[in-house]
Amino acid sequence: MSLKVFADVMSQPARAVVIFCRAAGIQHEHVPLRIANGDTRTPEYSAISPFNKVPVIKDGDFVLSESIAMFRYLAREKEIADHWYPKDSKGQARVDEYLEWQHLNTRINCSMYFLNRWMWPMMKQTAPDEKNVAKLLKTMNKTLDEIEKVWLKDGSKPYIAGDRISVADILAACELEQPSMAGFDVKANRPILSAYMERIKADLNPHYDDVHSAVYKMRDKFGGDIPGIYSSKAKL
Amino acid sequence: MSLKVFADVMSQPARAVVIFCRAAGIQHEHVPLRIANGDTRTPEYSAISPFNKVPVIKDGDFVLSESIAMFRYLAREKEIADHWYPKDSKGQARVDEYLEWQHLNTRINCSMYFLNRWMWPMMKQTAPDEKNVAKLLKTMNKTLDEIEKVWLKDGSKPYIAGDRISVADILAACELEQPSMAGFDVKANRPILSAYMERIKADLNPHYDDVHSAVYKMRDKFGGDIPGIYSSKAKL
Repeated sequence: MSLKVFADVMSQPARAVVIFCRAAGIQHEHVPLRIANGDTRTPEYSAISPFNKVPVIKDGDFVLSESIAMFRYLAREKEIADHWYPKDSKGQARVDEYLEWQHLNTRINCSMYFLNRWMWPMMKQTAPDEKNVAKLLKTMNKTLDEIEKVWLKDGSKPYIAGDRISVADILAACELEQPSMAGFDVKANRPILSAYMERIKADLNPHYDDVHSAVYKMRDKFGGDIPGIYSSKAKL
Repeated sequence: MSLKVFADVMSQPARAVVIFCRAAGIQHEHVPLRIANGDTRTPEYSAISPFNKVPVIKDGDFVLSESIAMFRYLAREKEIADHWYPKDSKGQARVDEYLEWQHLNTRINCSMYFLNRWMWPMMKQTAPDEKNVAKLLKTMNKTLDEIEKVWLKDGSKPYIAGDRISVADILAACELEQPSMAGFDVKANRPILSAYMERIKADLNPHYDDVHSAVYKMRDKFGGDIPGIYSSKAKL
């Protein structure tokens, strides 16, 4: 098998690429990495990923970083159903429009909440900075509002880029799962987003739940708590 | 003429799309907007741009936001030289790799420096927060290091994605110009980046200088100063 996908399933875009390969039926070998164990900091990995990031794909001798560049490359190179990334120029542009928008919106805002509310405090064994977290929560909620209002047109669109599921939905859902590990469920009090997330999960299962199993475990074990230091329900 | 480009030339990606259309010979009408004058906040503009951002293109009835989605759409729809956005799958992936990387690197880091060091203090008529600016400068310099080291391979590559100029270079140069208005020249003490910027400018002229004329004026008039409040050379 010539396509290798180097991915840590704790990373949102890494999960998205693995789920895409599985759901679209692209033959690949998932090379599991653990960022937390230093797997992306070895000299061997630096040679294929100068920024030491996941995911990376290696297709024969061709090495590529950046998940969105991968979706496009794989859509050109492999036999997949058209809806994942339409060949029709305007349909493709609609998918691209979200893929580009999300970097400074869904991606950064859900990530920053997750990192500041839970991941970094957990690593440092300190309580999160509540003032900073409140600010990041507000920014993240603005993004969630925009996804519901603009991208899903107040619930009248089933998918981000039209009537069929695309890579835009895979990436969106993976980013939207991340704050769950910090004790925040993006679906709470949001019927439009909730129905959307359930739809994406159902379309992508069993791959979605399987690739998210490590995320679900962290969510269920900690739910945003930092044991002995900080509880989501009450300060210790 | 059916292609309209709604662009404020004070915006980096807006400049990039205008320069691309001109340099690649894509017939278009540049509809000039001034964000500072509220042009992107009118009900008419909100109807084509729900996020009230520039640039936006309107090709016949088809409206598209996100500059990178536009590059790709225009490369498919219009007759342009191949080097701007290669049809070869691997060559295209190399351009995409930078276009995706830059959102959370060149774009955000040069923008945040510009906004915090000059634009926002200027609007509020206050001095910049020097501690915050120092932090943002460090982050921006890390990005500049990575452009020189990784993308330009220590100066051994003339362009970001290979031997020919592409949309990746247009976008990179437009983002790298922005801090000049905040008194910071990315070319200073950086011979690799300096040679690169001069190469891109020469390849894209007269369009590059023409589209940047408003930026050059602001740079030459203020150079990062906030008259009566803050001087780059000495505190007032």
